[in-house]
Amino acid sequence: MRFAIYLPPSANVGKVSALFWLSGLTCSEQNFITKAGAQRAASALGLALIVPDTSPRGEGVPDDDAYDFGCGAGFYVDATQEPWSRNYRMYSYIVHELRKLVIESFPVDPSRIGISGHSMGGHGALAIALKNPDLFKTVSAFSPISSPMDCPWGKKALAGYLGGDAADWEQYDAVKLMLNRGWSGPEILVEQGEADEFLRSQLKPDLLTHAAEMGDVPLRLRMRVGYDHSYYFISTFIAAHLEHHARYL
Amino acid sequence: MRFAIYLPPSANVGKVSALFWLSGLTCSEQNFITKAGAQRAASALGLALIVPDTSPRGEGVPDDDAYDFGCGAGFYVDATQEPWSRNYRMYSYIVHELRKLVIESFPVDPSRIGISGHSMGGHGALAIALKNPDLFKTVSAFSPISSPMDCPWGKKALAGYLGGDAADWEQYDAVKLMLNRGWSGPEILVEQGEADEFLRSQLKPDLLTHAAEMGDVPLRLRMRVGYDHSYYFISTFIAAHLEHHARYL
Repeated sequence: MRFAIYLPPSANVGKVSALFWLSGLTCSEQNFITKAGAQRAASALGLALIVPDTSPRGEGVPDDDAYDFGCGAGFYVDATQEPWSRNYRMYSYIVHELRKLVIESFPVDPSRIGISGHSMGGHGALAIALKNPDLFKTVSAFSPISSPMDCPWGKKALAGYLGGDAADWEQYDAVKLMLNRGWSGPEILVEQGEADEFLRSQLKPDLLTHAAEMGDVPLRLRMRVGYDHSYYFISTFIAAHLEHHARYL
Repeated sequence: MRFAIYLPPSANVGKVSALFWLSGLTCSEQNFITKAGAQRAASALGLALIVPDTSPRGEGVPDDDAYDFGCGAGFYVDATQEPWSRNYRMYSYIVHELRKLVIESFPVDPSRIGISGHSMGGHGALAIALKNPDLFKTVSAFSPISSPMDCPWGKKALAGYLGGDAADWEQYDAVKLMLNRGWSGPEILVEQGEADEFLRSQLKPDLLTHAAEMGDVPLRLRMRVGYDHSYYFISTFIAAHLEHHARYL
């Protein structure tokens, strides 16, 4: 497993807060760290950036020819189905293995960690925070899948990794988690481009705002006219998200 | 030929100033536009960004296996040697063809255009501005080659594109141009990382500061401790360069 990390200058004199960033389909640990332009704001805010890959990779790791399943498409779940269950354990990797490694290896304060992400990773951030509010104190997302149980990307991935029983999918679905667990942390910030080519077919932000209302979850969805699904969108608003996390961490 | 362009919001209501960015070895028109994080400052400053490729490419375009010659390594000269002379005319492309196309196709004010670049492209920006002070009013550079006549990358490229007579190289060498032509425009800003792996072998900023002194050229070289040759360095200081250009354009 590879991950990227950015440490702000203040990490030289003490422990800093940190933001985990979960990337979207086809991405590696490189996309965010090279394209989002987040380091300037992270430097000023004293925030470390922890940027994992989106799946296991390498010799002996099963893959699939599709861009939306297998390598580059781990969906941040622990697979139970063969041949994926041995390697595709991205949920446990993020929540336990990587978090532990980061805390032990870098001057990161374990009580001040937030999480964010994009698309598949935006959903991953939401689901992981909702399931682990003591480990991830703040959460935001760019262009997230709202409910993998209710979109083509998600249904394919969850069926492949977890099997055909949809009851097994609910533990990883942000909409179900909002309804079942709520969220008592700071407001959840969601940024969404109105010109996003996946808006209506895959992302469906209305599902998220509806679940937030029903589950009494503080969520602010900001629709942005003219923006698409790309890293140009992320680079435009990433500083505002880092400020949001830093304010509460 | 491909190029990237960013137009600031103010281009919707009138003509804007523009900065040409020339990239370094191995780059295409994508590197700067995706990695430098320049759009935020360009948006605030009302500055268009014009980002050409570093060489011709495609079927029928001669190439070389080396990373520092042929495709991705045009060095911003007009080649005179076979088989390069037909396609490798990056100097004329930037100064005449692309500049004309941009002025005719976009709301860019031809009297307010500056130029900058990185490494091979940092040198290209310096040489092109020094030769065309009426067309490019401001110039800056990141980690530029100071004198292609006096470094391994440059000697190889100039010999290949222009032939073995070093007298033919002088017209494209920033150090020679500073001495022979001077510069009456605003201060030339040069940003250089002290941990740059090419600092002493290829870039040699001392040659540039010496030529600036001898040629009475206003040049400010800023050495930055700890920074290398990468786009992370550029992304750290690009806003300051855009501000410098915008101030004088």
